[in-house]
Amino acid sequence: MAIIITAFERSPDGGKGLARDTRVRWALEEVGQPYEVRLVSFRAMKEPAHLGIHPFGQIPTYEEGDLALFETGAIVLHIAERHVGLLPDDANARARAITWMFAALNTVEPPILELVTAKFLEGDKPWSKKRLPLVQDRIRNRLGQLSARLGDADWLDGAFSAGDLMMVSVLLRLRSSGILDEFPKLAGYVARGEARPAYKRAFAAQLAINAGMS
Amino acid sequence: MAIIITAFERSPDGGKGLARDTRVRWALEEVGQPYEVRLVSFRAMKEPAHLGIHPFGQIPTYEEGDLALFETGAIVLHIAERHVGLLPDDANARARAITWMFAALNTVEPPILELVTAKFLEGDKPWSKKRLPLVQDRIRNRLGQLSARLGDADWLDGAFSAGDLMMVSVLLRLRSSGILDEFPKLAGYVARGEARPAYKRAFAAQLAINAGMS
Repeated sequence: MAIIITAFERSPDGGKGLARDTRVRWALEEVGQPYEVRLVSFRAMKEPAHLGIHPFGQIPTYEEGDLALFETGAIVLHIAERHVGLLPDDANARARAITWMFAALNTVEPPILELVTAKFLEGDKPWSKKRLPLVQDRIRNRLGQLSARLGDADWLDGAFSAGDLMMVSVLLRLRSSGILDEFPKLAGYVARGEARPAYKRAFAAQLAINAGMS
Repeated sequence: MAIIITAFERSPDGGKGLARDTRVRWALEEVGQPYEVRLVSFRAMKEPAHLGIHPFGQIPTYEEGDLALFETGAIVLHIAERHVGLLPDDANARARAITWMFAALNTVEPPILELVTAKFLEGDKPWSKKRLPLVQDRIRNRLGQLSARLGDADWLDGAFSAGDLMMVSVLLRLRSSGILDEFPKLAGYVARGEARPAYKRAFAAQLAINAGMS
Protein backbone atom coordinates (compact mmCIF):
# COMPACT_ATOMS: atom_id res chain seq x y z
CA MET A 1 0.00 0.00 0.00
CA ALA A 2 1.35 3.41 -0.96
CA ILE A 3 2.34 5.79 1.83
CA ILE A 4 1.19 9.36 1.22
CA ILE A 5 2.35 12.23 3.41
CA THR A 6 1.46 15.92 3.25
CA ALA A 7 3.86 18.85 3.18
CA PHE A 8 3.62 22.62 2.75
CA GLU A 9 3.07 23.73 -0.83
CA ARG A 10 5.49 26.47 0.18
CA SER A 11 7.31 26.05 3.50
CA PRO A 12 7.58 29.10 5.78
CA ASP A 13 11.31 28.38 6.15
CA GLY A 14 11.89 28.38 2.39
CA GLY A 15 13.40 24.89 2.40
CA LYS A 16 15.70 24.90 5.42
CA GLY A 17 14.22 21.53 6.41
CA LEU A 18 12.52 22.79 9.57
CA ALA A 19 8.95 21.97 8.50
CA ARG A 20 7.89 18.80 10.25
CA ASP A 21 7.45 16.75 7.08
CA THR A 22 11.26 16.52 7.03
CA ARG A 23 11.11 14.41 10.20
CA VAL A 24 8.71 11.95 8.56
CA ARG A 25 10.69 11.90 5.30
CA TRP A 26 13.84 11.16 7.32
CA ALA A 27 12.17 8.26 9.12
CA LEU A 28 10.91 6.79 5.85
CA GLU A 29 14.36 7.12 4.30
CA GLU A 30 16.01 5.41 7.30
CA VAL A 31 13.76 2.37 6.91
CA GLY A 32 13.85 2.42 3.11
CA GLN A 33 10.15 2.95 2.48
CA PRO A 34 9.09 4.88 -0.64
CA TYR A 35 6.41 7.54 -0.20
CA GLU A 36 4.36 10.03 -2.13
CA VAL A 37 3.82 13.64 -1.14
CA ARG A 38 0.66 15.68 -1.44
CA LEU A 39 1.36 19.41 -1.17
CA VAL A 40 -1.11 21.54 0.78
CA SER A 41 -1.53 25.33 0.65
CA PHE A 42 -2.02 27.40 3.80
CA ARG A 43 -5.62 27.95 2.77
CA ALA A 44 -6.32 24.27 2.09
CA MET A 45 -4.83 23.32 5.48
CA LYS A 46 -7.73 25.04 7.22
CA GLU A 47 -10.45 23.55 4.99
CA PRO A 48 -12.67 20.61 5.97
CA ALA A 49 -10.98 18.03 3.71
CA HIS A 50 -7.61 18.50 5.44
CA LEU A 51 -9.10 19.09 8.90
CA GLY A 52 -10.76 15.68 8.54
CA ILE A 53 -7.28 14.16 8.59
CA HIS A 54 -5.51 16.72 10.78
CA PRO A 55 -7.84 18.37 13.33
CA PHE A 56 -5.28 21.12 14.06
CA GLY A 57 -4.87 22.04 10.39
CA GLN A 58 -1.16 21.35 10.14
CA ILE A 59 1.24 19.14 8.21
CA PRO A 60 2.46 16.42 8.00
CA THR A 61 -0.20 13.75 7.81
CA TYR A 62 0.31 10.09 6.93
CA GLU A 63 -2.06 7.95 4.88
CA GLU A 64 -1.64 4.28 4.13
CA GLY A 65 -4.70 2.41 2.89
CA ASP A 66 -7.41 2.79 5.53
CA LEU A 67 -5.13 4.43 8.06
CA ALA A 68 -4.82 8.21 8.44
CA LEU A 69 -2.53 9.66 11.11
CA PHE A 70 -1.36 13.12 12.14
CA GLU A 71 1.27 14.30 14.68
CA THR A 72 4.87 13.84 13.62
CA GLY A 73 5.77 11.88 16.75
CA ALA A 74 2.98 9.38 16.22
CA ILE A 75 3.82 9.00 12.53
CA VAL A 76 7.52 8.42 13.18
CA LEU A 77 6.72 5.92 15.93
CA HIS A 78 4.30 4.11 13.62
CA ILE A 79 6.99 3.85 10.93
CA ALA A 80 9.62 2.80 13.48
CA GLU A 81 7.44 0.04 14.90
CA ARG A 82 6.61 -1.47 11.52
CA HIS A 83 9.99 -1.42 9.80
CA VAL A 84 13.55 -2.29 10.79
CA GLY A 85 16.04 0.51 11.34
CA LEU A 86 14.74 2.97 13.91
CA LEU A 87 14.23 0.95 17.10
CA PRO A 88 16.42 -1.67 18.78
CA ASP A 89 15.21 -5.27 19.08
CA ASP A 90 15.64 -5.53 22.86
CA ALA A 91 12.37 -4.57 24.59
CA ASN A 92 13.97 -2.39 27.26
CA ALA A 93 16.22 -0.59 24.81
CA ARG A 94 13.18 -0.05 22.61
CA ALA A 95 11.24 1.56 25.48
CA ARG A 96 14.21 3.83 26.20
CA ALA A 97 14.46 4.91 22.55
CA ILE A 98 10.76 5.80 22.60
CA THR A 99 11.40 7.72 25.82
CA TRP A 100 13.84 9.95 23.94
CA MET A 101 11.19 10.63 21.30
CA PHE A 102 8.86 11.92 24.00
CA ALA A 103 11.70 13.83 25.69
CA ALA A 104 12.44 15.58 22.40
CA LEU A 105 8.80 16.54 21.84
CA ASN A 106 7.56 17.30 25.35
CA THR A 107 10.65 18.42 27.30
CA VAL A 108 13.13 19.89 24.81
CA GLU A 109 10.84 21.26 22.08
CA PRO A 110 8.38 23.33 24.20
CA PRO A 111 10.95 25.98 25.27
CA ILE A 112 12.23 26.03 21.67
CA LEU A 113 8.67 26.61 20.43
CA GLU A 114 8.50 29.52 22.90
CA LEU A 115 11.50 31.06 21.17
CA VAL A 116 9.85 30.63 17.76
CA THR A 117 6.71 32.29 19.13
CA ALA A 118 8.74 35.09 20.77
CA LYS A 119 10.45 35.87 17.48
CA PHE A 120 7.70 35.41 14.92
CA LEU A 121 4.50 36.25 16.80
CA GLU A 122 5.82 38.70 19.39
CA GLY A 123 8.90 40.11 17.69
CA ASP A 124 7.17 43.47 17.22
CA LYS A 125 5.94 43.77 20.82
CA PRO A 126 7.45 46.32 23.20
CA TRP A 127 8.64 43.56 25.56
CA SER A 128 10.31 41.48 22.87
CA LYS A 129 13.91 42.58 23.40
CA LYS A 130 13.87 42.36 27.19
CA ARG A 131 12.02 39.05 27.28
CA LEU A 132 14.13 37.15 24.75
CA PRO A 133 17.04 36.41 27.13
CA LEU A 134 14.65 34.73 29.58
CA VAL A 135 13.31 32.47 26.86
CA GLN A 136 16.81 31.67 25.66
CA ASP A 137 17.99 30.84 29.18
CA ARG A 138 15.19 28.32 29.63
CA ILE A 139 16.41 26.59 26.47
CA ARG A 140 20.02 26.69 27.71
CA ASN A 141 18.93 25.04 30.94
CA ARG A 142 17.46 22.07 29.05
CA LEU A 143 20.37 21.85 26.61
CA GLY A 144 22.86 21.79 29.47
CA GLN A 145 21.08 18.78 30.95
CA LEU A 146 20.83 17.07 27.57
CA SER A 147 24.50 17.69 26.82
CA ALA A 148 25.50 16.27 30.22
CA ARG A 149 23.56 13.10 29.48
CA LEU A 150 24.89 12.71 25.94
CA GLY A 151 28.48 13.21 27.10
CA ASP A 152 30.91 11.93 24.49
CA ALA A 153 28.55 9.35 23.04
CA ASP A 154 27.50 9.45 19.40
CA TRP A 155 23.80 8.91 20.15
CA LEU A 156 21.58 9.17 23.22
CA ASP A 157 21.29 5.44 24.00
CA GLY A 158 23.41 3.03 21.99
CA ALA A 159 22.78 2.91 18.26
CA PHE A 160 20.98 5.66 16.32
CA SER A 161 17.22 5.42 16.92
CA ALA A 162 13.92 7.22 16.35
CA GLY A 163 14.73 9.04 19.61
CA ASP A 164 17.84 10.55 18.04
CA LEU A 165 15.96 11.34 14.83
CA MET A 166 13.46 13.36 16.83
CA MET A 167 15.97 15.02 19.13
CA VAL A 168 18.24 16.10 16.26
CA SER A 169 15.18 17.42 14.39
CA VAL A 170 14.10 19.48 17.41
CA LEU A 171 17.61 20.85 18.00
CA LEU A 172 17.94 21.85 14.33
CA ARG A 173 15.31 24.53 14.96
CA LEU A 174 17.87 26.28 17.17
CA ARG A 175 20.68 26.60 14.69
CA SER A 176 19.79 30.10 13.47
CA SER A 177 19.67 31.36 17.09
CA GLY A 178 23.33 30.50 17.74
CA ILE A 179 22.36 28.74 20.99
CA LEU A 180 23.18 25.29 19.65
CA ASP A 181 26.81 26.30 19.10
CA GLU A 182 27.14 27.12 22.80
CA PHE A 183 26.91 23.35 23.39
CA PRO A 184 29.65 21.77 21.28
CA LYS A 185 28.68 18.20 22.15
CA LEU A 186 25.12 18.86 20.97
CA ALA A 187 26.29 20.71 17.87
CA GLY A 188 28.38 17.63 17.02
CA TYR A 189 25.41 15.38 17.70
CA VAL A 190 23.21 17.38 15.32
CA ALA A 191 25.97 17.33 12.69
CA ARG A 192 26.15 13.52 12.95
CA GLY A 193 22.41 13.38 12.34
CA GLU A 194 22.64 15.66 9.32
CA ALA A 195 25.47 13.56 7.90
CA ARG A 196 23.32 10.45 7.68
CA PRO A 197 22.49 9.57 4.07
CA ALA A 198 18.80 9.18 4.97
CA TYR A 199 18.69 12.72 6.40
CA LYS A 200 20.41 14.09 3.31
CA ARG A 201 17.85 12.48 1.03
CA ALA A 202 14.99 13.80 3.16
CA PHE A 203 16.46 17.29 3.21
CA ALA A 204 17.04 17.30 -0.54
CA ALA A 205 13.49 16.14 -1.23
CA GLN A 206 11.88 18.98 0.75
CA LEU A 207 14.34 21.49 -0.67
CA ALA A 208 13.49 20.49 -4.21
CA ILE A 209 9.85 21.47 -3.64
CA ASN A 210 10.66 24.79 -2.03
CA ALA A 211 13.49 25.73 -4.37
CA GLY A 212 11.22 25.15 -7.35
CA MET A 213 8.82 27.77 -6.04
CA SER A 214 11.07 30.49 -4.72
CA MET B 1 8.39 -7.39 39.29
CA ALA B 2 7.42 -4.38 41.38
CA ILE B 3 6.75 -1.11 39.59
CA ILE B 4 8.27 1.90 41.35
CA ILE B 5 7.46 5.45 40.31
CA THR B 6 8.74 8.76 41.68
CA ALA B 7 6.65 11.73 42.79
CA PHE B 8 7.29 15.07 44.48
CA GLU B 9 7.89 14.83 48.21
CA ARG B 10 5.78 17.98 48.23
CA SER B 11 3.99 18.92 45.00
CA PRO B 12 4.10 22.58 43.89
CA ASP B 13 0.32 22.43 43.39
CA GLY B 14 -0.32 21.22 46.93
CA GLY B 15 -2.21 18.11 45.77
CA LYS B 16 -4.43 19.40 42.95
CA GLY B 17 -3.30 16.44 40.86
CA LEU B 18 -1.42 18.50 38.29
CA ALA B 19 2.02 17.00 38.95
CA ARG B 20 2.77 14.51 36.21
CA ASP B 21 2.94 11.47 38.48
CA THR B 22 -0.88 11.65 38.52
CA ARG B 23 -0.90 10.74 34.82
CA VAL B 24 1.19 7.63 35.49
CA ARG B 25 -0.84 6.68 38.58
CA TRP B 26 -4.01 7.02 36.49
CA ALA B 27 -2.63 4.74 33.77
CA LEU B 28 -1.58 2.12 36.31
CA GLU B 29 -5.01 2.27 37.95
CA GLU B 30 -6.78 1.87 34.57
CA VAL B 31 -4.87 -1.36 33.88
CA GLY B 32 -5.05 -2.58 37.47
CA GLN B 33 -1.31 -2.70 38.17
CA PRO B 34 -0.10 -2.08 41.73
CA TYR B 35 2.85 0.28 42.18
CA GLU B 36 5.12 1.73 44.79
CA VAL B 37 6.05 5.38 45.09
CA ARG B 38 9.41 6.86 46.00
CA LEU B 39 9.13 10.50 47.02
CA VAL B 40 11.84 12.88 45.87
CA SER B 41 12.66 16.33 47.26
CA PHE B 42 13.41 19.29 45.00
CA ARG B 43 17.04 19.08 46.08
CA ALA B 44 17.33 15.34 45.46
CA MET B 45 15.81 15.75 41.98
CA LYS B 46 18.90 17.65 40.87
CA GLU B 47 21.41 15.23 42.41
CA PRO B 48 23.32 12.55 40.46
CA ALA B 49 21.32 9.57 41.73
CA HIS B 50 18.06 10.95 40.33
CA LEU B 51 19.67 12.52 37.25
CA GLY B 52 20.95 9.04 36.40
CA ILE B 53 17.33 8.00 35.89
CA HIS B 54 15.89 11.33 34.75
CA PRO B 55 18.42 13.48 32.87
CA PHE B 56 16.19 16.58 33.16
CA GLY B 57 15.82 16.22 36.94
CA GLN B 58 12.04 15.89 37.00
CA ILE B 59 9.38 13.44 38.10
CA PRO B 60 7.88 10.94 37.40
CA THR B 61 10.23 8.10 36.63
CA TYR B 62 9.32 4.44 36.22
CA GLU B 63 11.41 1.49 37.37
CA GLU B 64 10.59 -2.15 36.84
CA GLY B 65 13.41 -4.64 37.31
CA ASP B 66 16.20 -3.68 34.90
CA LEU B 67 14.14 -1.05 33.12
CA ALA B 68 14.25 2.64 34.06
CA LEU B 69 12.17 5.15 32.09
CA PHE B 70 11.41 8.85 32.32
CA GLU B 71 8.95 11.11 30.39
CA THR B 72 5.32 10.69 31.30
CA GLY B 73 4.27 10.04 27.72
CA ALA B 74 6.76 7.22 27.30
CA ILE B 75 5.81 5.71 30.65
CA VAL B 76 2.08 5.78 29.93
CA LEU B 77 2.66 4.29 26.47
CA HIS B 78 4.84 1.56 27.99
CA ILE B 79 2.08 0.69 30.47
CA ALA B 80 -0.61 0.85 27.76
CA GLU B 81 1.31 -1.48 25.46
CA ARG B 82 1.91 -4.12 28.10
CA HIS B 83 -1.48 -4.31 29.79
CA VAL B 84 -5.09 -4.40 28.62
CA GLY B 85 -7.25 -1.34 29.12
CA LEU B 86 -5.67 1.71 27.52
CA LEU B 87 -5.30 0.84 23.83
CA PRO B 88 -7.74 -0.79 21.38
CA ASP B 89 -6.91 -4.18 19.84
CA ASP B 90 -7.30 -3.10 16.23
CA ALA B 91 -3.91 -1.97 14.87
CA ASN B 92 -5.21 1.14 13.11
CA ALA B 93 -7.31 2.24 16.08
CA ARG B 94 -4.27 1.68 18.27
CA ALA B 95 -2.12 3.94 16.09
CA ARG B 96 -4.80 6.62 16.24
CA ALA B 97 -5.01 6.42 20.05
CA ILE B 98 -1.23 6.88 20.22
CA THR B 99 -1.60 9.84 17.86
CA TRP B 100 -3.84 11.55 20.43
CA MET B 101 -1.17 10.99 23.10
CA PHE B 102 1.34 12.87 20.97
CA ALA B 103 -1.26 15.53 20.08
CA ALA B 104 -1.87 16.13 23.79
CA LEU B 105 1.84 16.45 24.56
CA ASN B 106 3.23 18.20 21.50
CA THR B 107 0.31 20.25 20.11
CA VAL B 108 -2.04 21.05 22.99
CA GLU B 109 0.32 21.16 25.98
CA PRO B 110 3.05 23.54 24.65
CA PRO B 111 0.78 26.65 24.58
CA ILE B 112 -0.54 25.62 28.02
CA LEU B 113 3.04 25.37 29.31
CA GLU B 114 3.55 28.91 27.97
CA LEU B 115 0.71 30.07 30.17
CA VAL B 116 2.24 28.35 33.20
CA THR B 117 5.58 30.02 32.42
CA ALA B 118 3.89 33.41 31.88
CA LYS B 119 2.21 33.20 35.28
CA PHE B 120 4.85 31.60 37.46
CA LEU B 121 8.16 32.67 35.92
CA GLU B 122 7.17 35.99 34.35
CA GLY B 123 4.22 37.08 36.48
CA ASP B 124 6.29 39.87 38.01
CA LYS B 125 7.61 41.24 34.72
CA PRO B 126 6.42 44.60 33.38
CA TRP B 127 4.99 42.95 30.24
CA SER B 128 3.05 40.26 32.07
CA LYS B 129 -0.41 41.87 32.03
CA LYS B 130 -0.30 42.94 28.40
CA ARG B 131 1.16 39.68 27.16
CA LEU B 132 -1.17 37.26 28.93
CA PRO B 133 -4.11 37.69 26.50
CA LEU B 134 -1.88 36.71 23.57
CA VAL B 135 -0.82 33.52 25.34
CA GLN B 136 -4.41 32.74 26.26
CA ASP B 137 -5.61 33.29 22.69
CA ARG B 138 -3.09 30.79 21.36
CA ILE B 139 -4.55 28.24 23.76
CA ARG B 140 -8.11 29.14 22.71
CA ASN B 141 -7.14 28.56 19.09
CA ARG B 142 -6.03 24.99 19.82
CA LEU B 143 -8.99 24.27 22.10
CA GLY B 144 -11.42 25.46 19.45
CA GLN B 145 -9.94 22.95 16.99
CA LEU B 146 -9.95 20.18 19.57
CA SER B 147 -13.55 20.89 20.55
CA ALA B 148 -14.62 20.83 16.90
CA ARG B 149 -13.05 17.40 16.48
CA LEU B 150 -14.49 15.97 19.69
CA GLY B 151 -17.98 17.23 18.85
CA ASP B 152 -20.57 15.41 20.92
CA ALA B 153 -18.54 12.24 21.34
CA ASP B 154 -17.54 11.00 24.78
CA TRP B 155 -13.92 10.35 23.84
CA LEU B 156 -11.62 11.38 20.99
CA ASP B 157 -11.71 8.15 18.98
CA GLY B 158 -14.13 5.44 20.09
CA ALA B 159 -13.59 4.00 23.55
CA PHE B 160 -11.52 5.71 26.27
CA SER B 161 -7.80 5.29 25.57
CA ALA B 162 -4.35 6.42 26.65
CA GLY B 163 -4.89 9.31 24.22
CA ASP B 164 -7.85 10.53 26.27
CA LEU B 165 -5.97 9.97 29.52
CA MET B 166 -3.21 12.26 28.29
CA MET B 167 -5.51 14.87 26.73
CA VAL B 168 -7.69 15.14 29.83
CA SER B 169 -4.56 15.42 32.00
CA VAL B 170 -3.19 18.24 29.83
CA LEU B 171 -6.52 20.12 29.81
CA LEU B 172 -6.81 19.83 33.60
CA ARG B 173 -3.90 22.26 33.87
CA LEU B 174 -6.20 24.93 32.42
CA ARG B 175 -9.02 24.69 34.93
CA SER B 176 -7.78 27.46 37.24
CA SER B 177 -7.46 29.84 34.27
CA GLY B 178 -11.17 29.65 33.44
CA ILE B 179 -10.34 29.01 29.76
CA LEU B 180 -11.56 25.42 29.87
CA ASP B 181 -15.08 26.56 30.79
CA GLU B 182 -15.23 28.62 27.60
CA PHE B 183 -15.40 25.28 25.75
CA PRO B 184 -18.33 23.36 27.25
CA LYS B 185 -17.72 20.22 25.20
CA LEU B 186 -14.14 20.06 26.47
CA ALA B 187 -15.17 20.86 30.03
CA GLY B 188 -17.59 17.92 29.83
CA TYR B 189 -14.87 15.73 28.37
CA VAL B 190 -12.53 16.54 31.24
CA ALA B 191 -15.31 15.90 33.75
CA ARG B 192 -15.89 12.46 32.20
CA GLY B 193 -12.21 11.71 32.67
CA GLU B 194 -12.25 12.84 36.29
CA ALA B 195 -15.31 10.70 36.95
CA ARG B 196 -13.50 7.48 36.08
CA PRO B 197 -12.85 5.35 39.17
CA ALA B 198 -9.20 4.89 38.12
CA TYR B 199 -8.69 8.67 37.97
CA LYS B 200 -10.32 9.09 41.37
CA ARG B 201 -7.99 6.54 42.92
CA ALA B 202 -4.95 8.18 41.31
CA PHE B 203 -6.05 11.62 42.48
CA ALA B 204 -6.70 10.42 46.03
CA ALA B 205 -3.29 8.72 46.21
CA GLN B 206 -1.37 11.87 45.27
CA LEU B 207 -3.57 14.01 47.52
CA ALA B 208 -2.88 11.76 50.50
CA ILE B 209 0.84 12.48 50.20
CA ASN B 210 0.43 16.21 49.85
CA ALA B 211 -2.31 16.61 52.43
CA GLY B 212 -0.19 14.77 54.97
CA MET B 213 2.51 17.36 54.59
CA SER B 214 0.65 20.62 54.28
